Amino acid sequence: MNIPRCSFPRIVIIGGGFAGISLAKKLRNKNVQVVLLDKHNYHNFQPLMYQVATGGLEPDSIAYPIRKVVQEYRDFYFRLAEVKEIDAKNNTIIADIGELKYDYLVIATGSKTNYFGNKEIEANSMAMKTIPQSLNIRSLILENFEQALLTNDINERHSLMNFVIVGAGPTGVELAGALAEMKRAILPKDYPDLDLRKMEINLVQSGDRVLDAMSENASEKAEKFLLDLGVSIWKNVRVMSYDGKMVTTDSDLSFDAATVIWTAGVQGAMPHGLKADSLVARVNRIKVNAFNQVEGYENIFAIGDIASMTSEDYPHGHPMMAQPAMQQGRLLAENMIRLIQKKQPKNFVYKDKGSMATIGRNKAVVDLPKYKFSGVFAWFVWMFVHLFSLIGFKNKAVVFLNWVYNYIRFDREARLIIRPFKKKNQVSFTSDEV
Amino acid sequence: MNIPRCSFPRIVIIGGGFAGISLAKKLRNKNVQVVLLDKHNYHNFQPLMYQVATGGLEPDSIAYPIRKVVQEYRDFYFRLAEVKEIDAKNNTIIADIGELKYDYLVIATGSKTNYFGNKEIEANSMAMKTIPQSLNIRSLILENFEQALLTNDINERHSLMNFVIVGAGPTGVELAGALAEMKRAILPKDYPDLDLRKMEINLVQSGDRVLDAMSENASEKAEKFLLDLGVSIWKNVRVMSYDGKMVTTDSDLSFDAATVIWTAGVQGAMPHGLKADSLVARVNRIKVNAFNQVEGYENIFAIGDIASMTSEDYPHGHPMMAQPAMQQGRLLAENMIRLIQKKQPKNFVYKDKGSMATIGRNKAVVDLPKYKFSGVFAWFVWMFVHLFSLIGFKNKAVVFLNWVYNYIRFDREARLIIRPFKKKNQVSFTSDEV
Repeated sequence: MNIPRCSFPRIVIIGGGFAGISLAKKLRNKNVQVVLLDKHNYHNFQPLMYQVATGGLEPDSIAYPIRKVVQEYRDFYFRLAEVKEIDAKNNTIIADIGELKYDYLVIATGSKTNYFGNKEIEANSMAMKTIPQSLNIRSLILENFEQALLTNDINERHSLMNFVIVGAGPTGVELAGALAEMKRAILPKDYPDLDLRKMEINLVQSGDRVLDAMSENASEKAEKFLLDLGVSIWKNVRVMSYDGKMVTTDSDLSFDAATVIWTAGVQGAMPHGLKADSLVARVNRIKVNAFNQVEGYENIFAIGDIASMTSEDYPHGHPMMAQPAMQQGRLLAENMIRLIQKKQPKNFVYKDKGSMATIGRNKAVVDLPKYKFSGVFAWFVWMFVHLFSLIGFKNKAVVFLNWVYNYIRFDREARLIIRPFKKKNQVSFTSDEV
Repeated sequence: MNIPRCSFPRIVIIGGGFAGISLAKKLRNKNVQVVLLDKHNYHNFQPLMYQVATGGLEPDSIAYPIRKVVQEYRDFYFRLAEVKEIDAKNNTIIADIGELKYDYLVIATGSKTNYFGNKEIEANSMAMKTIPQSLNIRSLILENFEQALLTNDINERHSLMNFVIVGAGPTGVELAGALAEMKRAILPKDYPDLDLRKMEINLVQSGDRVLDAMSENASEKAEKFLLDLGVSIWKNVRVMSYDGKMVTTDSDLSFDAATVIWTAGVQGAMPHGLKADSLVARVNRIKVNAFNQVEGYENIFAIGDIASMTSEDYPHGHPMMAQPAMQQGRLLAENMIRLIQKKQPKNFVYKDKGSMATIGRNKAVVDLPKYKFSGVFAWFVWMFVHLFSLIGFKNKAVVFLNWVYNYIRFDREARLIIRPFKKKNQVSFTSDEV
């Protein structure tokens, strides 16, 4: 990579997600050279991805060009690159666009879908971790209904209208709710020839409650909201296989469904080349100390979903969410400056600001450290927080406008099949790449 | 196709562009059964496509779900289908999703890019007739700059930063202007390591003026605007070949360019199966009489770009633009009702409302039947007319918001590589389909 050396130490950051961007912003004009690498040229706002998948928002409004974030920073380089390997011995990363030496390396590669080793499910189900994947889900939902119109086979039609969402964490719950809203307000108008009562939304959860990372109160409310919307919830059920047609579980339950969306787990997106085994914590995360330093390395750090920093309160590391990622990114910037200045770095302490999930129109649950509430007010809080967190004024304005419109009109207009999923799937196609 | 017969005559419309949608709207609740077929599930607003290609607008805001247009119409069916053949003898169309009998058939298949038989140019250049194609151009422009950063080869870098647009009709001119705006306001900030003065925008025109379908005044002004923006205009030059690297012309001129965008011609998107030869007019259009009836058929009509209706004023048919398409669609609806009621249909008379093109910020040319003007006021007229013509309140609002934002901030934020063009191109990929 053609990046000129300057007299400042070079910090290479892999990944422009919440962690990487928060770090980059704080390293602005700080007498370090920063090289930020990402395989996409945009930062995306994961928490609203389910709205892209269900036609509520355009993909562009939840994404933001990384170059625009760092555009005015001094000694700052962005490169569109996929890192293949870390050669820690030589302080070098090896990417698809070439090699690069670093003085300090920060791994902020985030997480990817965890199929727990089930290749069959991986091949046949849909994931929702990237914008292209969300657009694929949007296309597939619509293509299914178009196809349901064409068949006279009642079983096939049922299968096309049967949606199974595996995993009732925030992503699964929000997606199930949004699909239910589509079922109620949009699809009957778009497909008057289909009997939309036959559309099923099945939410399958291996544990005994939905949103199990939130309070019991939030779980109960969310469950009630989902049931009100017509979602079928299956708790204590574990999906065992899916061949593209039939979902089997560890119980008698099975589903004949053309669409399975897998939101049942995430794992660290581990880069190659670190002396792995001893470093790897649960779900493929990298063990780091209280300064986010990777165990056994002086100049390599990991932040965000990929980093597992254990403490008394978090024996398995922090939750794989935006908040810990952003907080770690910000503190690491400070700590790196301290390290360069030979000062003692500060320990990271996670400040839990709470969590929330929206289920549908006027329906959300919010757990703050001190208050827990749900319903219309929670829904407004959810919207306000998410709107406020989006990067860029224009994205905020466009999302706000879409929400107001969708709310008043009971509509979701971004239901265009711009990247046909099924058709494309017939040619060679990797859902993650395209 | 599973479409129930009712007592009303069945009208099948192929194509949901300006012509097909205008016709469909006017056939609303008119005691006919209407089946509208399109290979996309959205209607798109062609005149703003160049803004999608240059990151000014999201694709969703210039597209509109066809189902939403026809959602409340009685006896109305939309099917996502690609028509393969017309079997006129049996009053049947054959599509990828099955066959369908019609009582009346309307061909509104529009136009596609015309490479005048040059397969090499077709394979190596970019077209801009569909939303996926526009997104491909957007990706390619950005990928080129990302790649230009990586190379030490000065010739390669120059080639990556050299854009050749062939054809100086409205599409070519508007695209050249928008690229020039990117060069001026956005790319230097995004790519501070590149010398953006080296970026070239070459507009090649075989005729002796740009916008040759407009007034001489408009051509002169447009040319001046383009030159002010730094676009190089090459008139009376015909592009002969492009192998993906080098553009050769019928003169000494050649360009070493990684990107060629071909806007030099369109042709009718002719369906198979009509007794072709005698029916086909210039650029693959179907000859129709003054009622848009296809010559030699009682119950087959063609409207819009695909139809060639000649008259004294239009010896080669009407211009292939939105206005004649919409006017023909609307009149045909009336005429079909008349025909069904055994009344005499009305002759089509094209009412030319004028034409316009925008070149950049505050720069547009407008030819109205009585007035011709250019500059800031023309630019406002252009924006107002285009905003007003978009289908749907939300699209209007989002486009307006984007324009205001882009204007104030000198920005175009939708510059995300969501569908990497080059990477995908390495696997099998048909630019028209994906």
